[in-house]
Amino acid sequence: MTTEKTILDYDTVALDDTDSALVIIDQTKLPGKIELLRLHTAEEIWNAIYLLQVRGAPAIGVAAGFGIYLLAKQIDTTDFLIFYEEFSRAKQYLDSSRPTAVNLSWALNRMEQVVLAHKNEPIPTIKQLLKETAIRIQEEDIDICRRIGEHGLSLVKPGDGILTHCNAGKLATSRYGTATAPIYLGHERGYEFHVYADETRPLLQGARLTAFELQSAGIDVTLICDNMSAMVMKQGKVNAVFVGCDRVAANGDAANKIGTSVVATVAKHYGVPFYVCAPTSTIDWNTPTGADIMIEERKPSEVTDMWYEKRMAPEGVKVYNPAFDVTDAELISGIVTEYGVARAPFTESLKKIKLLKENEENGR
Amino acid sequence: MTTEKTILDYDTVALDDTDSALVIIDQTKLPGKIELLRLHTAEEIWNAIYLLQVRGAPAIGVAAGFGIYLLAKQIDTTDFLIFYEEFSRAKQYLDSSRPTAVNLSWALNRMEQVVLAHKNEPIPTIKQLLKETAIRIQEEDIDICRRIGEHGLSLVKPGDGILTHCNAGKLATSRYGTATAPIYLGHERGYEFHVYADETRPLLQGARLTAFELQSAGIDVTLICDNMSAMVMKQGKVNAVFVGCDRVAANGDAANKIGTSVVATVAKHYGVPFYVCAPTSTIDWNTPTGADIMIEERKPSEVTDMWYEKRMAPEGVKVYNPAFDVTDAELISGIVTEYGVARAPFTESLKKIKLLKENEENGR
Repeated sequence: MTTEKTILDYDTVALDDTDSALVIIDQTKLPGKIELLRLHTAEEIWNAIYLLQVRGAPAIGVAAGFGIYLLAKQIDTTDFLIFYEEFSRAKQYLDSSRPTAVNLSWALNRMEQVVLAHKNEPIPTIKQLLKETAIRIQEEDIDICRRIGEHGLSLVKPGDGILTHCNAGKLATSRYGTATAPIYLGHERGYEFHVYADETRPLLQGARLTAFELQSAGIDVTLICDNMSAMVMKQGKVNAVFVGCDRVAANGDAANKIGTSVVATVAKHYGVPFYVCAPTSTIDWNTPTGADIMIEERKPSEVTDMWYEKRMAPEGVKVYNPAFDVTDAELISGIVTEYGVARAPFTESLKKIKLLKENEENGR
Repeated sequence: MTTEKTILDYDTVALDDTDSALVIIDQTKLPGKIELLRLHTAEEIWNAIYLLQVRGAPAIGVAAGFGIYLLAKQIDTTDFLIFYEEFSRAKQYLDSSRPTAVNLSWALNRMEQVVLAHKNEPIPTIKQLLKETAIRIQEEDIDICRRIGEHGLSLVKPGDGILTHCNAGKLATSRYGTATAPIYLGHERGYEFHVYADETRPLLQGARLTAFELQSAGIDVTLICDNMSAMVMKQGKVNAVFVGCDRVAANGDAANKIGTSVVATVAKHYGVPFYVCAPTSTIDWNTPTGADIMIEERKPSEVTDMWYEKRMAPEGVKVYNPAFDVTDAELISGIVTEYGVARAPFTESLKKIKLLKENEENGR
């Protein structure tokens, strides 16, 4: 129970107190069941990522960091070459669990660099450094989320209505989430927001995950279907929209969960500011516009019969099921990063964000 | 098989060949099962309307007409007073099946007028007149739908992409539907439309009914989630949107299934014309604007656990579930009635439609 409380209050992914297991909330069981998984072996960790028991790019990165540390710790040798060979095998294996998740490879590569940079140190020292780096990956993610939260919070006021789409919450990241960071920070400070969570068809991340985590945190959240956004905005119930994103192009076009651009269009029509919360790791300065972002298409059964007791569409019906859409920069009021809020023209403001990031990194 | 084919090809509601039963497709079983129900007793007819086995205001009106005829036919007397007393009892009973469906009362009242206007005729004559009137109610509905279809068809061209929301198809009306009338008429004439059907959360009428009836008719239909409308419009796949409506105010504001105003907003943003198909029976010249239209709120479980194998949102979560929304007149490119297409300013154009209707009715 204590661990469960800790996980819900703080982190979706954690190292067990005994330093022997990676602990995650099984997100495939939510919201019906809060089940903690203790993962020890490479297979268990691989499966958890593959089966989406842990999901959300930053959360996957954190899980990979702790995971590869635990596997490295289990390597019983004092010989660096043997250690590195086994480490590499484990790394490659974990990396194959979700080939497209950028943070997975990024975290594993960062851990490998620690090994290579300290190859002349004793193995126990390397293991200790790996642990510290895994913890740092999580701490950095928490820090980024909190900073996004601070900048986001400056855009709203106590009592505001906030609408969000999909889940860019603590379940997908560390502690604060990205789109939810202003909400959680505001809640800590007594802002009393009224949050509307889009259910987010077809996979219902809003109903299953966002409504769950906000409700668990004691935040006032109302679940709506995706097609009800105009209704609540017209009624004046929404003062700002915060969404996460998967990739931001250099011109400010933002790819995020399918339906995001519908919310943005409706928000613009009703004069509601629409904010994309984007850690700079998701900004791709090499992609000129949203038109250059590939959109994954997923299988029809997600729309026609996933979740349902019986098939809800005729057999053989054609289905179009894009997983993401691109919200044009012109619909975006601001892109909230850990370095501040970028505003139009985004090509200029995102360049400034890049400079701030480079300056901070060089200053470390 | 023949009757099934007939129903699917023509009418959702029909009088049995033997003149002894009301035949309907059980819409609660669609799209998994095409089941015809033969209804003989007052209880059977009442239940079919109450349980939404037959739904859609015009279809309910037609079912009520045939239903009250069948019940009148079963009254075994030659005495008018006894006949009228039993007729009235049956009428009142059927009328209680769905108190808010305007067409139900309207059709039953029209049938009652036939009885009262011919009280001096022999009972068999009255029964025959009731049958003719019930058939006429259906024929008039078919005629209205076809005329809406003709006017709607003038707004599109062969090969066009058409998006529709919810079900304003043949299952809800007679033969052509309203929003689907241009699609069916165009199909008869080889237009080869590409239709996108919004699934229409929470009750999935688009997935269950629209995709089913268009697919059954051999029309190219692609099912999408409600939040994918921006994606297909941005890709240039949609040349026009046709939706039905529940009530149009005198200024052109139109109440229809929840989500309609989201589609209208997105269509406006992408320059796609948005048409509301409205038989004049749904135009309420006494309601000044959409703000005067009451919106029904329905129970949370429709959103959180209807259709699902397990509950998809946390227990106790707040849900907002409005059944309809109002699309502002400024978002509507045209209101397609059986008397032609009304365009902005609607207060003027709808007045002209009213005159055309009155002229036609006076000319009869």
